[in-house]
Amino acid sequence: MCDNIRDLFKNRFGLVIQEDAPYHIALTHSSYMNEKKMEELEDNERIEYLGDAVLELLVSTYLYKHYPQLPEGDLSRMRALIVCEDSFSLRCKECGFDQFIRLGHGEEANGGRKRPSLLCDLFEAVVGALYLDLGLDAVEEFLKQTVYPKIESGEFKDHRDNKTALQEELQKNGQIHLSYEIVKETGPSHQKNFDVEVSLNGQVIGHGSGSSKKMAEQAAAKEALDKVEKQK
Amino acid sequence: MCDNIRDLFKNRFGLVIQEDAPYHIALTHSSYMNEKKMEELEDNERIEYLGDAVLELLVSTYLYKHYPQLPEGDLSRMRALIVCEDSFSLRCKECGFDQFIRLGHGEEANGGRKRPSLLCDLFEAVVGALYLDLGLDAVEEFLKQTVYPKIESGEFKDHRDNKTALQEELQKNGQIHLSYEIVKETGPSHQKNFDVEVSLNGQVIGHGSGSSKKMAEQAAAKEALDKVEKQK
Repeated sequence: MCDNIRDLFKNRFGLVIQEDAPYHIALTHSSYMNEKKMEELEDNERIEYLGDAVLELLVSTYLYKHYPQLPEGDLSRMRALIVCEDSFSLRCKECGFDQFIRLGHGEEANGGRKRPSLLCDLFEAVVGALYLDLGLDAVEEFLKQTVYPKIESGEFKDHRDNKTALQEELQKNGQIHLSYEIVKETGPSHQKNFDVEVSLNGQVIGHGSGSSKKMAEQAAAKEALDKVEKQK
Repeated sequence: MCDNIRDLFKNRFGLVIQEDAPYHIALTHSSYMNEKKMEELEDNERIEYLGDAVLELLVSTYLYKHYPQLPEGDLSRMRALIVCEDSFSLRCKECGFDQFIRLGHGEEANGGRKRPSLLCDLFEAVVGALYLDLGLDAVEEFLKQTVYPKIESGEFKDHRDNKTALQEELQKNGQIHLSYEIVKETGPSHQKNFDVEVSLNGQVIGHGSGSSKKMAEQAAAKEALDKVEKQK
């Protein structure tokens, strides 16, 4: 079993596994362990818990660095679309880890090997093993080849981030300078309203308002984006 | 502001800050930013999101390594007690970060500097800054001096982990060997029941049963623990 995953990591991802033990654990489902009643076996639930935290951190860091304009709420929403069963069960199958997991007979008969929740847990468990064996840098390398390209291709794009979209759209025609300015602020402190203007190289191209500066900016960027789209 | 936190990290934790910018962000509350309307300022919400993920991973790793007996559910419960507002708002005050945060006038007047949710966010934000500036190893060093000692002193001890408690209790009298054995397994695959015996150096000292091997083992350890307590 571990020879197979060792070959897969080496040939496909250029990562050389040092210790077999964590992968043994990652590829052992609780149904297999219960059946075998072997004291020395550990199933993959603990290592999956660790892998999940590794994925949360690395995806958070990726988003933080690649979307400097995005408010925290949008980063969290985007992360939730990436670090989830739908997404990781697909990555698990793409990597072929599903071939290697050891299941109990009942679980196998019930189609466990194709169940998204089991595949997602398996992906997280293998990441946990990689982290224990080779450290965070190796997991980062693995994600560069599996998860990050999906983010880059826009699979999880949050359309609410109008500021980033506007910047990217206008940059196509060369260097630009976008600036946002609060032009009006009304209401008491617990019920504020902000009016914001967005300018391209000093010329106003959109207005927006909202209960926070960020929301007003996003609204202004949306108005500008809509105009750009119409002019196309 | 950054001179103060620079001195604090150096004198108290032996950590030498390289870049001021992330700490500037970490120490800027959204209420301050909205008041100042300064374009170049970023508040600490994004960096707090990053710090939260750093803390989740490092605390998960710590628990995974220090509690090899603990099932995943118990690790998660224990982590939730550590990575939370109650715990981090206290750590924030112990570290004195609350002196340095920049608040808007309204937030200051409303007692924001003492509010647990704000203090917890601040702690996470400073950890996010440390991670961006000096990397994960520096955060690990910081946690060794702030959070881990609280775990070691038993502040978050989950009393449901009877296996660990039994091991620790019996080890007080020297080297021991504890083993768990399934002695009966009944019921169909979706409704199994396991009976487990726990033995000390080969002699049975407790019985337990449960719907999984883990739960049966915990029950057996509990029975043994209760006996040990009575004999005291």
